[in-house]
Amino acid sequence: MNVKDYIDTIVKDAKNASRVMATVSSSAKNAALEQIAHNLLNCKTTLMSENEKDIKAAEKEGLSSAMIDRLRLTDSRIEDMAKGIREVINLADPVGELMEERIRPNGLQIQKVRVPIGVIIIIYESRPNVTADAASLCLKTGNATILRGGKESIHSNIAIYRQISSALEKVGLDKKAIQVIETIDRKAVDYLLKADEYVDLVIPRGGEGLIRNVVENSTIPVIKHYKGVCHIYVDEFANLNMAKDVCLNAKIQRPGTCNAMETMLVHEKIAKTFLPDISRSMSDAGVELRGCEKSRKILPDIKAATEEDWSTEYLEKILSVKIVSSIEEALNHISVYGSSHSDAIITEDKPNAKKFTDEVDSAAVYVNASTRFTDGYEFGMGAEIGISTDKLHARGPMGLKELTSYKYIVHGNGQIRS
Amino acid sequence: MNVKDYIDTIVKDAKNASRVMATVSSSAKNAALEQIAHNLLNCKTTLMSENEKDIKAAEKEGLSSAMIDRLRLTDSRIEDMAKGIREVINLADPVGELMEERIRPNGLQIQKVRVPIGVIIIIYESRPNVTADAASLCLKTGNATILRGGKESIHSNIAIYRQISSALEKVGLDKKAIQVIETIDRKAVDYLLKADEYVDLVIPRGGEGLIRNVVENSTIPVIKHYKGVCHIYVDEFANLNMAKDVCLNAKIQRPGTCNAMETMLVHEKIAKTFLPDISRSMSDAGVELRGCEKSRKILPDIKAATEEDWSTEYLEKILSVKIVSSIEEALNHISVYGSSHSDAIITEDKPNAKKFTDEVDSAAVYVNASTRFTDGYEFGMGAEIGISTDKLHARGPMGLKELTSYKYIVHGNGQIRS
Repeated sequence: MNVKDYIDTIVKDAKNASRVMATVSSSAKNAALEQIAHNLLNCKTTLMSENEKDIKAAEKEGLSSAMIDRLRLTDSRIEDMAKGIREVINLADPVGELMEERIRPNGLQIQKVRVPIGVIIIIYESRPNVTADAASLCLKTGNATILRGGKESIHSNIAIYRQISSALEKVGLDKKAIQVIETIDRKAVDYLLKADEYVDLVIPRGGEGLIRNVVENSTIPVIKHYKGVCHIYVDEFANLNMAKDVCLNAKIQRPGTCNAMETMLVHEKIAKTFLPDISRSMSDAGVELRGCEKSRKILPDIKAATEEDWSTEYLEKILSVKIVSSIEEALNHISVYGSSHSDAIITEDKPNAKKFTDEVDSAAVYVNASTRFTDGYEFGMGAEIGISTDKLHARGPMGLKELTSYKYIVHGNGQIRS
Repeated sequence: MNVKDYIDTIVKDAKNASRVMATVSSSAKNAALEQIAHNLLNCKTTLMSENEKDIKAAEKEGLSSAMIDRLRLTDSRIEDMAKGIREVINLADPVGELMEERIRPNGLQIQKVRVPIGVIIIIYESRPNVTADAASLCLKTGNATILRGGKESIHSNIAIYRQISSALEKVGLDKKAIQVIETIDRKAVDYLLKADEYVDLVIPRGGEGLIRNVVENSTIPVIKHYKGVCHIYVDEFANLNMAKDVCLNAKIQRPGTCNAMETMLVHEKIAKTFLPDISRSMSDAGVELRGCEKSRKILPDIKAATEEDWSTEYLEKILSVKIVSSIEEALNHISVYGSSHSDAIITEDKPNAKKFTDEVDSAAVYVNASTRFTDGYEFGMGAEIGISTDKLHARGPMGLKELTSYKYIVHGNGQIRS
């Protein structure tokens, strides 16, 4: 079968499966999830030996050790996958929720009811655990899912997929409800992204290049975030001890995440006190600072930040620093260089806090807390399929509810429109 | 200025205006709306004389009289525009609504707050009243709007725009909050649709060709509906008098609308009783029937429906008719040929009604009522900017709430992530 026909079959099968999945009970979906967890734990050896093929190929290709590490399936990582699936079982199923209800003057009863989105494509890079994580969240919400992982993890993904399929079959659900693209041909993605007749949503997860490619080529709605250039603005009225703790946490606790701080904005009135102190702590933690001209007068040893630095998502132990002369200058900097992801103000001044939360147009806006909290688990959603910096449908962490849509169910007794 | 630079300026100005608009009070937005209504009423003569230029050009181009009628601004249509704007003033402003709030175990207070979407492009065809209608809904919800109407209505749209701009200026709001594209160069649309750095949403309103072009070329999220191929399924357990009234209403009350019925599905057990009766009434109302083979055995005089008929949105007094042998066959037909807009079942049988509302994957699913009710006003939203058959963000009629997004505002006292 050529790639076009292959994808055509996949998307049509997914659409058919989604019709069935929309009406499957929570207990049947949970039984499927439990069976998937069980299967994965039961075939660790197979998963690891298939994974070994990917690792060998990656080593041969000369991929970085960080990349190879992300690719690797270990005993404990497989157990984590199963644990993650079992956590999803314990979450409430949002499908079927009566979101709104009203009776119109003509007697029509209008109900807004939560339903699955339908068919969702997930396009991701090399981490094979995404295959199980994303599939379980989409399954729990009654969606049919098409997964397309990076070519580096193809053997691992297919091995996981085999276990998912056999689990779905075993519990009597349509095994086409979760499908993995088994070819590494890049044309597969092109065809997938044009299948708007059958697919309702694409979620790309990965680097900016991958996401940009999806956005430019998809005729299906996309939810995404390109990057996280997160700011912390240390206001003139900040508690400087708190500012130091929060800034250190936001930068170094996990620098490779999208909600880590990349730029620190410091009010000029407290810069002379705050900067030398935070700079020592950052240095001790191995963070390289790159500063604006003003900040380099206080910290003469740090590198100069270039224009490019202000919009760079470092994802490592580098921090750009800028002194601002007012909260307005901070707001303007965030508006120009930010990525609408997560931004924080540290202040004890209520009007400034309010101004900041009112005016910063980001998915999550913080007062006196670390930007690192932008996360489905930390927000109490119980799970996360990704983070959106779009403003349509879902913004910020996306949990189970964000994987649903709604429909209007209208009951009448013969009403006609006049 | 060339078109690219022109659009570049427009989208940047809109983005800047959106930052301000997000924090403007409801009363200031209402004052602007009142001023717009006032200005439009005050300059009827100018509007009509500018409109006359469009009408003359349309006549010269040989446009149909229906098209020319849609284009025409009359005294009463201008009054209707002003009336529509004043109705929007009376609607509650959804911006600022606290949608959810939770305190996390670590003390973080997480608020989900309704905010404007940001910058919205509306692309539409020839009816100039859309300029005022769409602008007022977007203004009420604190969005900045870029309007691109059909080239046939360019003089009318610009004339309306002048009044809107002067109203915004008079009340002290940024007049770039509402902008109309003043060139008919089609490249303007191409540039607009790639301005994802500045624009958050595109709403195309018009025929399927216009919408398809927007979807294929836009890197900005789009909310749309291609067409409405709406079904009514007359079940074996239907009250046939009710079925007749509802089907007639759904077909003939306004055949040119997207929520009018295009296909009637009839259970075989009641077909011999129901079809002759409804067929007479439809004929009396000037409706042409096109039937499946089985239905033509009962109604030998009607035309045969072709495969194409089942997926055609006639938008006129034509109705395709199909006899089905079960509710499953009806569900399957709707799934294959429907447009996920509005579909109804007429039945007195509760399990069948539930099966239908559970399984039909459309924005609005009706039991014993006309599909014609899919409308923002009829649903009690107070207004409507359009109807979505997408499943992302908004589905079905889109009112003010559907023109908003949300952000998370998180208050802490120095929380860091461990």
